[in-house]
Amino acid sequence: MRLDYPGFDFKITARDPDSCARTAVLSTPHGTIETPNYIFCGTKATVKNLSPAQLLEARTDIILSNTYHLMLQPGADLIAKMGGLHSFMNWGGPMLTDSGGFQVFSLGEGTMANEIKGRSGKGHDNRNLLEISEEGCVFRSYIDGKKIALTPEGAMEIQRKLGADLLMQFDECTPYHVDKEYTARSMEMSLRWGDRCLAEFARHHNGKQAVYGIVQGGIYRDLRRISAEYTGDRPFFGTAIGGCLGGSDEEMADVVDGSAPYIHPHRPVHFLGIGRIRDVFTFVRMGIDTFDCVIPTRLARHGTAFMRGVKGETINLKNAQYRDDPSPLDESLGLASSAQFSKAYIHHLLKANENLASQILAQHNIATLNRLMREVREAIPKGRLEALEREWLDR
Amino acid sequence: MRLDYPGFDFKITARDPDSCARTAVLSTPHGTIETPNYIFCGTKATVKNLSPAQLLEARTDIILSNTYHLMLQPGADLIAKMGGLHSFMNWGGPMLTDSGGFQVFSLGEGTMANEIKGRSGKGHDNRNLLEISEEGCVFRSYIDGKKIALTPEGAMEIQRKLGADLLMQFDECTPYHVDKEYTARSMEMSLRWGDRCLAEFARHHNGKQAVYGIVQGGIYRDLRRISAEYTGDRPFFGTAIGGCLGGSDEEMADVVDGSAPYIHPHRPVHFLGIGRIRDVFTFVRMGIDTFDCVIPTRLARHGTAFMRGVKGETINLKNAQYRDDPSPLDESLGLASSAQFSKAYIHHLLKANENLASQILAQHNIATLNRLMREVREAIPKGRLEALEREWLDR
Repeated sequence: MRLDYPGFDFKITARDPDSCARTAVLSTPHGTIETPNYIFCGTKATVKNLSPAQLLEARTDIILSNTYHLMLQPGADLIAKMGGLHSFMNWGGPMLTDSGGFQVFSLGEGTMANEIKGRSGKGHDNRNLLEISEEGCVFRSYIDGKKIALTPEGAMEIQRKLGADLLMQFDECTPYHVDKEYTARSMEMSLRWGDRCLAEFARHHNGKQAVYGIVQGGIYRDLRRISAEYTGDRPFFGTAIGGCLGGSDEEMADVVDGSAPYIHPHRPVHFLGIGRIRDVFTFVRMGIDTFDCVIPTRLARHGTAFMRGVKGETINLKNAQYRDDPSPLDESLGLASSAQFSKAYIHHLLKANENLASQILAQHNIATLNRLMREVREAIPKGRLEALEREWLDR
Repeated sequence: MRLDYPGFDFKITARDPDSCARTAVLSTPHGTIETPNYIFCGTKATVKNLSPAQLLEARTDIILSNTYHLMLQPGADLIAKMGGLHSFMNWGGPMLTDSGGFQVFSLGEGTMANEIKGRSGKGHDNRNLLEISEEGCVFRSYIDGKKIALTPEGAMEIQRKLGADLLMQFDECTPYHVDKEYTARSMEMSLRWGDRCLAEFARHHNGKQAVYGIVQGGIYRDLRRISAEYTGDRPFFGTAIGGCLGGSDEEMADVVDGSAPYIHPHRPVHFLGIGRIRDVFTFVRMGIDTFDCVIPTRLARHGTAFMRGVKGETINLKNAQYRDDPSPLDESLGLASSAQFSKAYIHHLLKANENLASQILAQHNIATLNRLMREVREAIPKGRLEALEREWLDR
């Protein structure tokens, strides 16, 4: 099977002399971005608390939306009728959608991060997940309790209707607390699901979308290798790393490090659901091109701001020390809002439960991560990643 | 007693040939605005869901903040230490603060509008209000339950620390369901409180602030007249109309119409807490220069958009008819956001509980009321108010 992606391109432009880090240019029908880059989560067709204009002010290049949420509300057909996701949410740049699998298989909203990081119970402890079989899965809508089937073909159809540039194959997001045998069977099923996704994708391919395969295999290097090689042999445009990566930063790094050599070397590599500042430094070095994570906006809602050059990456504006701190949130960022509002004011907004705090901090966090990615892209060709990491993480 | 307001001015520039409506220029140390105008509520030092930049985009001239909320959190001293309210919240234009009386005497958040419109129980049914006496009042903080005393002198001191341009005297906001005797005694006490406010204000007067007296007297024309004349005889910069105005639109109009002839004719007149589109047309004709009301932002949070030329003034984007309506919210407004987002998208955001809906609709509502006020100011010298009212209210 062969698939061409005429409206797409991925060109590696430079490599780090000391690691597998690389810079590249990723072209899509909705624009070209430089990588490494960060894909911000617009789960329900909106990056929480921010308009597209505010995203652009924060120098955002690319966002994603979640198939699982959108298929339930407002529905893929409605979005297609409104001209697709770009037009519906008024975002003109590159966009990615996931396949819905992650949310279906995870334990429901709010615990996905725990699940991926192995901090939850045994296996699929998800009462809304009614059935997994070779065909696909059946789950209960969190909105109205309706039974809904999702198959590889269905996931591709929905993503076609949503109309994002970059699509994800449907996969089983294997949980942490299962044994190797389950993980192997699950990974193999995901590979077959990947083939079905490609077949379905090919049937409607019009050059406006491109699909990523997903490498599963849990924490097992040998399984990750099989998955990476199989996926690399199929005509996916890109490769994503998904599923459980272990319970610690070290285990996660070890799993990715072990899979990296077997991932297709000329395709963009996306790391699903990971994206603290230290993760960016760790995984860019292993050849990751794009990251996504909900934490920039989620932490914002809890009063936490990513900061350059701060131990632990973040400060929490709810802390009493900021009550009477007149200094601006961040004058160095080049974002009007972060330069204008004082820490004391944001502290007050948080204490008063005012949404403007989430808006200010979400835009700040996104602008900060965009700055991080710009500086990472500058550092790679110069072999300056290590120095940059020390600057960012105050090490 | 004499008080000069060197940094302030109020110049009447035109009059409606058919009513008491007038246009004027109101100058403050933080800028000059044209009236009639709308003062948007930034209760806790933020207009809910909007940044000052977004307020300016919506062509906002003037905002207010609430003494009651700010004295409790973060406290007037903290705001003074941060350079005052303008600097704290990053609003450079004219600003008004109320005296705190309205909130202390009303039934708590969310029911103030009911109270002013006479839709609540008997008298001061406010468990947090512990005592009213000639000296002032004692209430319980809604934040930590602490007992707090507020006097006319205290209200002026707090407003001095907050540093807004236009201040309000401390008054008892007389409830609806009390008899005429209570209303008369309450109104008379408010007059004495007004004198104490002026004395306290004069002790620290530096030309940067100006104070409004408040006309009380409930629904009783004779009491309103006494209050208006007394207030007009005192060296207030402006006059505000406060307190209970009756249970219906007709009663409210009757009360204001009855008080208007006795209000000082050369001072700006502010109508406290009132501001639907039909109110603007009704009360501009009675000589009201400025309005304030929480409804532009409060209705926004419930999915309601003010619209020009719509029966009933508003549409509710939660209604099923908007589910697949691709038309922009309002292309005629001259606001980027209202022109870019479709009704279907806003409907989706509301169904999905996404804050971006409140942001879009709050900015839209404010921009719409600012447009209303601009058109009202244009209409007055031309005697076109009636025609304009028909256009706005689709009558």
